[in-house]
Amino acid sequence: MTRYRAPKRDIRFVVRELFDFETHYRKLPAYSEVDENLIHTILDEYAAFCEEVVAPLNRSGDEEGCTFSDGEVRAPKGFKEAYRQYAEAGWTSLPWEREHGGQGLPLSLNKLLMEILAASNVAFSLYLSAQPGALETLSVFGSPAQRETYAPKLVDGTWNATMCLTEPHCGTDLGLLRTKAEPDTDGAFRISGTKVFITGGEHDFNENIVHLVLARIENAPAGTAGISLFVVPKFDVDADGNPGKRNAVSCGSIEHKMGVHGSSTCMMHFEGAKGHLLGEPNRGLHAMFTFINASRISAAMQGVAHAEFGFQKSLAYARERLQMRAAAGPERPDHAADPIIVHPNVRRMLLTQKALAEGNRMMTYDLAMQLDRAAHDPRTDDRRRARQRLDFMTPIAKAFATETGFEAANLALQCFGGHGYIREWGVEQNVRDARVATLYEGTTGVQALDLLGRKVLGTQGTLLAEFIDEIERFCEAHHDSSLMSLFVSRLAGLTREWSAVTERVGQRASVNPEEIGAASVSYLMYAGYVCLAYYWARAAAVAATAAERTFESGEEPDFYESKIATARFYYDHILPRTRACVGVIDAGAESLMALNAESFQF
Amino acid sequence: MTRYRAPKRDIRFVVRELFDFETHYRKLPAYSEVDENLIHTILDEYAAFCEEVVAPLNRSGDEEGCTFSDGEVRAPKGFKEAYRQYAEAGWTSLPWEREHGGQGLPLSLNKLLMEILAASNVAFSLYLSAQPGALETLSVFGSPAQRETYAPKLVDGTWNATMCLTEPHCGTDLGLLRTKAEPDTDGAFRISGTKVFITGGEHDFNENIVHLVLARIENAPAGTAGISLFVVPKFDVDADGNPGKRNAVSCGSIEHKMGVHGSSTCMMHFEGAKGHLLGEPNRGLHAMFTFINASRISAAMQGVAHAEFGFQKSLAYARERLQMRAAAGPERPDHAADPIIVHPNVRRMLLTQKALAEGNRMMTYDLAMQLDRAAHDPRTDDRRRARQRLDFMTPIAKAFATETGFEAANLALQCFGGHGYIREWGVEQNVRDARVATLYEGTTGVQALDLLGRKVLGTQGTLLAEFIDEIERFCEAHHDSSLMSLFVSRLAGLTREWSAVTERVGQRASVNPEEIGAASVSYLMYAGYVCLAYYWARAAAVAATAAERTFESGEEPDFYESKIATARFYYDHILPRTRACVGVIDAGAESLMALNAESFQF
Repeated sequence: MTRYRAPKRDIRFVVRELFDFETHYRKLPAYSEVDENLIHTILDEYAAFCEEVVAPLNRSGDEEGCTFSDGEVRAPKGFKEAYRQYAEAGWTSLPWEREHGGQGLPLSLNKLLMEILAASNVAFSLYLSAQPGALETLSVFGSPAQRETYAPKLVDGTWNATMCLTEPHCGTDLGLLRTKAEPDTDGAFRISGTKVFITGGEHDFNENIVHLVLARIENAPAGTAGISLFVVPKFDVDADGNPGKRNAVSCGSIEHKMGVHGSSTCMMHFEGAKGHLLGEPNRGLHAMFTFINASRISAAMQGVAHAEFGFQKSLAYARERLQMRAAAGPERPDHAADPIIVHPNVRRMLLTQKALAEGNRMMTYDLAMQLDRAAHDPRTDDRRRARQRLDFMTPIAKAFATETGFEAANLALQCFGGHGYIREWGVEQNVRDARVATLYEGTTGVQALDLLGRKVLGTQGTLLAEFIDEIERFCEAHHDSSLMSLFVSRLAGLTREWSAVTERVGQRASVNPEEIGAASVSYLMYAGYVCLAYYWARAAAVAATAAERTFESGEEPDFYESKIATARFYYDHILPRTRACVGVIDAGAESLMALNAESFQF
Repeated sequence: MTRYRAPKRDIRFVVRELFDFETHYRKLPAYSEVDENLIHTILDEYAAFCEEVVAPLNRSGDEEGCTFSDGEVRAPKGFKEAYRQYAEAGWTSLPWEREHGGQGLPLSLNKLLMEILAASNVAFSLYLSAQPGALETLSVFGSPAQRETYAPKLVDGTWNATMCLTEPHCGTDLGLLRTKAEPDTDGAFRISGTKVFITGGEHDFNENIVHLVLARIENAPAGTAGISLFVVPKFDVDADGNPGKRNAVSCGSIEHKMGVHGSSTCMMHFEGAKGHLLGEPNRGLHAMFTFINASRISAAMQGVAHAEFGFQKSLAYARERLQMRAAAGPERPDHAADPIIVHPNVRRMLLTQKALAEGNRMMTYDLAMQLDRAAHDPRTDDRRRARQRLDFMTPIAKAFATETGFEAANLALQCFGGHGYIREWGVEQNVRDARVATLYEGTTGVQALDLLGRKVLGTQGTLLAEFIDEIERFCEAHHDSSLMSLFVSRLAGLTREWSAVTERVGQRASVNPEEIGAASVSYLMYAGYVCLAYYWARAAAVAATAAERTFESGEEPDFYESKIATARFYYDHILPRTRACVGVIDAGAESLMALNAESFQF
C-alpha cells in the first residue's frame, strides 16, 4: 500500500514561486522575521512528523474506531501517544501569542500544515481542530483573566477544546437552540441542555477539555439574538489554574459514522454545568463566528487533503497495474500488458484529481495569507480588504474544495476498479472520510446561500467586483504572451460572464427571494471553477517563466512543463463544467418550486 | 427510520401508461397470455415479499456482515431463511422454461423486479444475481445433458451459481487470465487457478453451487482467443443428478469491503477441480458475454434502486425536519421553523433524485422489453433490431444509471446534513452500497469504451442513427402541442448535436485512436442525459393526456402534474450538464496525453 508523502515540491511551488510567502511576511511586522528557510524547515519537520507518526495510525484507527463505556471515550490505539508527541514537539503552539507560550509564527503557515495533517489521518486531525478556533475566540472575546486561565494550557496542548453548537433539533438553524444558562450566585452560569455531534467532546488525551457552548440566558430574546457563548470546562479550574472539581458535563454516547472512525463524535449532556460567559450576553453567535470561519478554512484544507491522498494512491496504482494495451500500440512490449496510466480515461481521472488537488491548494493558501493580513497588516485599509476577501472566499473554498475533494476521492477509488472497493487499499476509507467534509462546518447548501445571498448580493456585488478586478488586471498583464493568451482570453470571458450572471440572478431575486436558494449551489460551483481557472492561469504564468530558466540550466524543467500541461487540462476538461452551471443558474426557481410538498411522491 | 416501499404507482405508470407492457407481451407468442392483471399481481406480491422479508435484513446485514472460518462462509442472520422463502415462493423460477420447472413468464418482468429487490437489500440481491446469467448461458451454450443436470435445480433455487472471471492480476483484461484446464481421462477437465471477487462464491444457502469458470485449455492460443468456459460444481453431480463428491474448489478468504457487507465476495481456489466444458473450446469469452450482458442490465437496475431508496428516505426527512423559514415567509407559523422541503436547494436535491430514479426506471424498463423481443419476437428482423438496441443501450444504462444512482444516493445523504453521516439513518449505507455499482460488471470506463468504440463508431453509427430516428419521429409527432413543444424543440436539437458530436469524434479517432478513450466517459454521460430527456418527454406526453382526462374525472390529476413538473425540472436543471459533456468531448485527447507517466508527480 502506497504511503502518503507530503507534496513538498508542490507546496514549495505555491509558497515560494506562486505567492512568495517570504515577501508577504516581510510586509507584516508580526511576521517579518519569518524567512524562506524557516518556512521550509517547519514544513519539512511537520511533514516528517505526520508521515512517521500520524499517517501509520490512519488505517488502524479506521478499523478500530472509538469505544465508549460508562461516559468514557477511548480513541484508537496510538492516538493518545501521537497527540502527546505532537504537543511536545510544539506543533499546537505554532501561531499563538508568545505571552501565552506560543511561537508567534504566521497563521497562514499553521493553516497550510492542516492539509498535511488531514491527508495523514483526518480522524486524528479532528482532535486538533477545535483548539485554533477556541484560542482565536478567546483572544477576541475573552477577558484578560479568561485568556490567562485557558490560553496557555490550550497553546501547549495540555488542555483541549470543543465547539458545542448543534442540538438534536437544530444544526443550521441555531436560532432554535434550547440549552439554558441560569445565572449563579458567583457570577457564573448553570448550563443545561444536550449538544450533539461534538467532535472530541470526550476522550482521554488531555487533563481538561474546554467546551465553548452556545446557550440562552433566561429571558433572552427568541431566535439568534438571544444566544450567548460560555466556557464550560470539563474540570472547573481552581485558584491555581489547575483542573479542580469535575463539572456537570458528560458524554452520553458516541456516534457510529460512515467514516472518520478514529474521531469521537459525542452527545454531550450539560446538567447544570458551571459556565463562564465569554463576550457579551446575547452576542454568542457573533463570537462563535470567529470560531466557525476558522473551522471552515480548515475544512477546505481537508478537501485538498482528500484529493491529494487519493491522487497519490491512484497514481501509484495506475503506474503498476498492467491491463490492456495502449491504443497507439504496446508501450511495454516486455510485459503482457501496459500500465493502465497509458489509457486516456485513466489519465482523465488522474489529471482531474491532480488539477483539483493542486488548484484547491492554491486557492486555500491564498485564503490563508488573508488570515495574516486581516490580523496583522499595518494598514487599516489592507486589513479591511483582507477581511472582505476572507468573507468572500471562505464559503467558496469550503464548499468547492470539499465537494471536489469528494469527487477526487471517488475518482481515485475508480482508478482501482473493483480493488478500490476493498478496504485493504485504503482508498475507500478516503471516500468515507471525505464524505463528511461537505456536511460539517456548514453544508454546501449553507455555504452557497452565504456566498450568493450575503457575500455577493448582500454587498451589492462589491466583494465580487473587487475580486473580478484582480483577475482582470492579471488578464491584462498577460494577454500579449502567446502561451498565456490561451488562458487569459477564456478567463477574461468568464469574469465578464460572472458579472452578468450575477446581475441576472440579482434581478430575479429582487422579485422572488427563492431565486437565491435556487441558483446558490450552481453559483458557488461556478465561482469555484472560475477561481481555480484564475489560480491555474497564475500557476502557468509562473511556470512558463521558470521553464525557460530551467530549460537553460537543465534543472527540473519537467516540473514546470507538468504545471503548464495540468493548467491546459484544467481549461480543456474541467472548465466546460461552467457551461452546465450557467445553464442551471439561468433556469431559475420556477421548476424547483412548482410541486407542492405532497406531490413529490405517490 | 423510513421503511422502503416499492414505488408501485410509478412502476404502474411506466409499465401500463408509458410502455403498455400488455400490448407488448401480446405481440410475443411466448408471453401472449400475460395480461395487466397478472403483471400487477406479480408486482404486488413481489413488492410485499421484499418489503416484509428482505428489507428488514438490510441494516442488520450491513452491521453484521459475512463471516469466514475454515473455508466456510456464513451470511448475516436471516439471509439464509429469507433466501429459502424466496425460492419456495417461486421467485427464482419466474422467467425460465417450463420444461425446467420455470414459469415461462417474461424476462422483462423478472428484470424489473430486480429494482425492488436491490432497493430492499442490495447485498441480499447479490445472492440471486448469478442465477439468471448462468441459466441463460446454459440455455444457449449448454448441451441438453448439461441443461438437464443443472437447469432445474438452478430454476427452483435448490442450487446457486457464480461467475468466475476475475483473477488477482486481471479484471478488465481477461486476455491475461491464467487459470488452467487440463483434459482428464473421462472427458472432463481439471481446473487449477485462483479467482477473486466471486460474489456468493461460498455460503450455506444451497446444497450446491455451480461455478461458471473461465480457464485456458493447455496449448490454447494466447489472449482472449484461448479462453474456454467450464461448469465447476462445488459438489460433483452423481448419476442421479444429486450432489456427490466435494470438488477441489474452496474459498480461501472473503473481502472486507466498503459496502454490501451482507454479500460474500470470495477468493476461490481451484485445485484440480473437475470441470465440464460449456460450449466450444476457446469460445468461452463469447459464451460468458451472455452472462455479462444480463448482469449489466441488473446492475443498471441497482442504480435505479439506489436513487429510489435515497429519494424515499430524504423526502421523508425533508418533510419532517424543521429548520429555518421559507424565503417567501413562514409556511408553518404554528411551528418554530418550516420543514426543509420549502428550501429551493433541498428541493433541487430531492428533484434531482426523483428525476434520475424515475428517468432511469423508464430507460431500464425499455431495455428490459428488448430482452423479450430479442428472445421471442416472431419476426427475425425485429429480433435483430431488439438485439441491436440492447447492444447500444446496455452500456449507457449500466454506466449512466449507476453513476447517477451514486450521485442520487449522495444527494439523499446531503439532505440529512450531519445526520446523514450517522449510520442509524441508513442513508450512508446506501451510499456505500451504491459505490460498487460503477465498478463491477465492467467499470464506467469499460462501458464508455464499449459504447463509443464498439457500438457507435464500430457500427459506423448505424445503431445510433436508428435510435436517433426513433427520437426524431417522437419529436415530429409532438411538435405542435404547446406543452410538448417546450420539450421536443430542445430534444430535437440534442439529437442533431449528438450526430454532429459523434461525427467529430469519429473523424479525430480515425487519425488518433486515443481520441476514443479521451471522449468516452463524457460521451456516455451525454448519451445518458439525452436518453433520459427522451424518456422524460415521452412521460410528459403521456401525463399531459392523462392529466386532461383525470382533471375532468377528479381522479389523481396531481400524479400527472407532478410528472410534467419533474420533466420540466429535468430539462431545466439536469439537461444543462450536456453543455459540459460536449465541451469536454470536443477538447479531445491532446491535454490528456501531453504528460509522460513520470511527470504526473514530483
